[in-house]
Amino acid sequence: MIKKISDEILTNGKAYDNLHYLTKQIGGRLSGSSQMVKAEKWGMAVMKESGADKAWLQECLVPHWVRGGKDKAEVHYDGAVTGARNLLLFNKQLDVLALGNSEGTKNKNLTAKVILVNSFDELEKKKDSLKGMIVFYNYKFNPVFISTFQSYGNAVGYRGGGASRAAKYGAAAVIVRSMTHSTDNNPHTGALRYDTTLAKIPALAVGLKDADWLSDQIQNNKVISLTIKTNAHFLPDTMGHNVIGELTGSEFPDEIITIGGHLDSWDPAEGAHDDGAGVVHTIEILRTFKALGYKPKRTIRFVLFANEENGLRGGTKYAQEAKEKNEKHIFALESDAGGFTPRGFSFGGTPEQLKKLQSWVPLLYPYGVYEITNGGGGADIGPLNRTFKTPVAELGPDSQRYFDYHHARNDVFENVNKRELELGAVNMAALIYLIDKYGL
Amino acid sequence: MIKKISDEILTNGKAYDNLHYLTKQIGGRLSGSSQMVKAEKWGMAVMKESGADKAWLQECLVPHWVRGGKDKAEVHYDGAVTGARNLLLFNKQLDVLALGNSEGTKNKNLTAKVILVNSFDELEKKKDSLKGMIVFYNYKFNPVFISTFQSYGNAVGYRGGGASRAAKYGAAAVIVRSMTHSTDNNPHTGALRYDTTLAKIPALAVGLKDADWLSDQIQNNKVISLTIKTNAHFLPDTMGHNVIGELTGSEFPDEIITIGGHLDSWDPAEGAHDDGAGVVHTIEILRTFKALGYKPKRTIRFVLFANEENGLRGGTKYAQEAKEKNEKHIFALESDAGGFTPRGFSFGGTPEQLKKLQSWVPLLYPYGVYEITNGGGGADIGPLNRTFKTPVAELGPDSQRYFDYHHARNDVFENVNKRELELGAVNMAALIYLIDKYGL
Repeated sequence: MIKKISDEILTNGKAYDNLHYLTKQIGGRLSGSSQMVKAEKWGMAVMKESGADKAWLQECLVPHWVRGGKDKAEVHYDGAVTGARNLLLFNKQLDVLALGNSEGTKNKNLTAKVILVNSFDELEKKKDSLKGMIVFYNYKFNPVFISTFQSYGNAVGYRGGGASRAAKYGAAAVIVRSMTHSTDNNPHTGALRYDTTLAKIPALAVGLKDADWLSDQIQNNKVISLTIKTNAHFLPDTMGHNVIGELTGSEFPDEIITIGGHLDSWDPAEGAHDDGAGVVHTIEILRTFKALGYKPKRTIRFVLFANEENGLRGGTKYAQEAKEKNEKHIFALESDAGGFTPRGFSFGGTPEQLKKLQSWVPLLYPYGVYEITNGGGGADIGPLNRTFKTPVAELGPDSQRYFDYHHARNDVFENVNKRELELGAVNMAALIYLIDKYGL
Repeated sequence: MIKKISDEILTNGKAYDNLHYLTKQIGGRLSGSSQMVKAEKWGMAVMKESGADKAWLQECLVPHWVRGGKDKAEVHYDGAVTGARNLLLFNKQLDVLALGNSEGTKNKNLTAKVILVNSFDELEKKKDSLKGMIVFYNYKFNPVFISTFQSYGNAVGYRGGGASRAAKYGAAAVIVRSMTHSTDNNPHTGALRYDTTLAKIPALAVGLKDADWLSDQIQNNKVISLTIKTNAHFLPDTMGHNVIGELTGSEFPDEIITIGGHLDSWDPAEGAHDDGAGVVHTIEILRTFKALGYKPKRTIRFVLFANEENGLRGGTKYAQEAKEKNEKHIFALESDAGGFTPRGFSFGGTPEQLKKLQSWVPLLYPYGVYEITNGGGGADIGPLNRTFKTPVAELGPDSQRYFDYHHARNDVFENVNKRELELGAVNMAALIYLIDKYGL
């Protein structure tokens, strides 16, 4: 059966074509945007075309954050230090993107001196010098971790919490070195979270080349000011939807297995890896089961979650309604780490369940999955896990390229390889097949 | 020590910068070309800079095949069938590349009708209709194999032997569907081998979109002629070189370990994955051992082999001289499968040696290598294996993207990921370290 699944996907797969439509015809689809609405409509249509027994939209209010225009950060040397010549020569624009959920400058120029801090420790040491300044967090993505997700976990606190930590000491704004190993200069956005007891100061991500340049300038004692401008702000919450397709179980219809990815994606790109890949993986598994005439014993739900990026409202709503309806969720699987060549799954459940899954690794091995590690599922199925202790898993593709594209403008269709994408679907479908057949 | 190797390469690695120079400053470097000469010179300089105890050039005569201009294949409908209107509308150019080692049309137009064959079986069935025709081999790269090298092994006979098999039945020329899963239309060249008892007819590779189009046209009973033109031909053999660096062993200087990749690459591209990656892997291991102050017990040779692509003269010469000098070659390792994320090594040696290598997999596992399979080394170290029964191995990167670029014009620096490239060097260096330390 797994060989049949693999042959079907590698020969007749629609994941790549579906991804092409989603990325090129719809594009970035942040919660509240008009593309979100288009993507939901498309998702419903594809669920039906792919053979869902039923398909529906599950309403959930989503935040509506907008960038509101082009973000700007312009460099000025302090004339007293660098002289008039530099003032004339340099009017460098940094390549920046306002962080998601940030409050901008109301589209007005904000000019202030920049202070470099390489870590939160350094921030604390300089806390008395931050008033009115723009804090530049230059914390590096650590190259020695083999999994880039470790580098991300290590650095992402600067994006998520850096603004409020600087606001506490009176800073006017922050710019944050992007969370990436990439060799280009693209800034990488992503959500921040303000401490609501403090001023919500503007926050921008800056690309690595510009970050290195800026750091060099400051370390060479060139006093630098920045003029930043962003129009980022929230509009009122708006109605979004989880898109749900279902194959109803033939023997145990009340036992629900969920597969999903998130439909929303950041505005500067096409959301191809994050998480177009997870969306089309999900749909491809449905299509493949139907194409092979596989009738699952248990009910399988194929879910395109709303609002993972800046609110997690979709995943939260899905678990909440499941609780209200007293549903029995036996397993959930997410794909939200890109459409790269698969290597494994991470799993959050009991040691016995983990052992059972690991006993199936030899069945997945020919298709590229060689390990199932103790870890957890994706963000969207976290609420299900917390509500029901539902065991959860996430596809673990090779991580090396993920943060080259993550939340940056180059997260586009062209950077997804057809076969790598398809092999993710093969292994996910195989795992779901095994769990449907043998339980967990 | 392996952690130190990994940290050094991921933090201070020069493989990516070296690859940039090789691909962008030198470019494609087919045997006999002026770029070959530049690449050898660069290779010697980098060997020395990277800390070789000694470095030298090993002379070997190499074939000098040249494309000699732009290859052409122009489509003509047969007026009798399609009418004058189509003759006016269609003058489609197929995207083609003469196969390496092929003899062209002496830059003159050759016009003939096309006959489609989907396999050698079909060729045999149609053998009486081939006289004067252009045979179009449309054998598909099979998508169901998980390793793309299996698809390649399955299909490459059409490129290597298709011309002579068609010449046997009087065909005027062949065009061959490219050996790739790629979604673009780039033709993929590569070496053919003529049966010298038969006419050396022209042979062209065609991209997948054009191959599909042409196949459709023919299957729709549109009689099609092609005008092809290629100036491919051989010039006299010329002097090339293996570039060799050495770290001389401190305890067992007579026991030689060879690491290598091949310096030559096809002309239409930059040879970034094939085999720029292997070249810079090789140099990076030398650099890393020196940077860490590691003094090997055994002698380690770092070899940039000449002429893998269309003659294997470099690898042959290396083994031949080793035999003349009665050298003791205890192990050889090649990287010639691209700069992609590593998954394993293949190994050609005794079952006991394989078992010993496999016992080290847990040491490599954190860096991405999870299997060492029974197989063989790369082409360049094959002669060493055949001469001395030297055990050989080859890095096994993930294969999904390799044939997207292999011998095609998009095998360029931009399609190599820095960390994926570096991780190949990490695992190769680790394996060499283990063999140097513990023997084999």
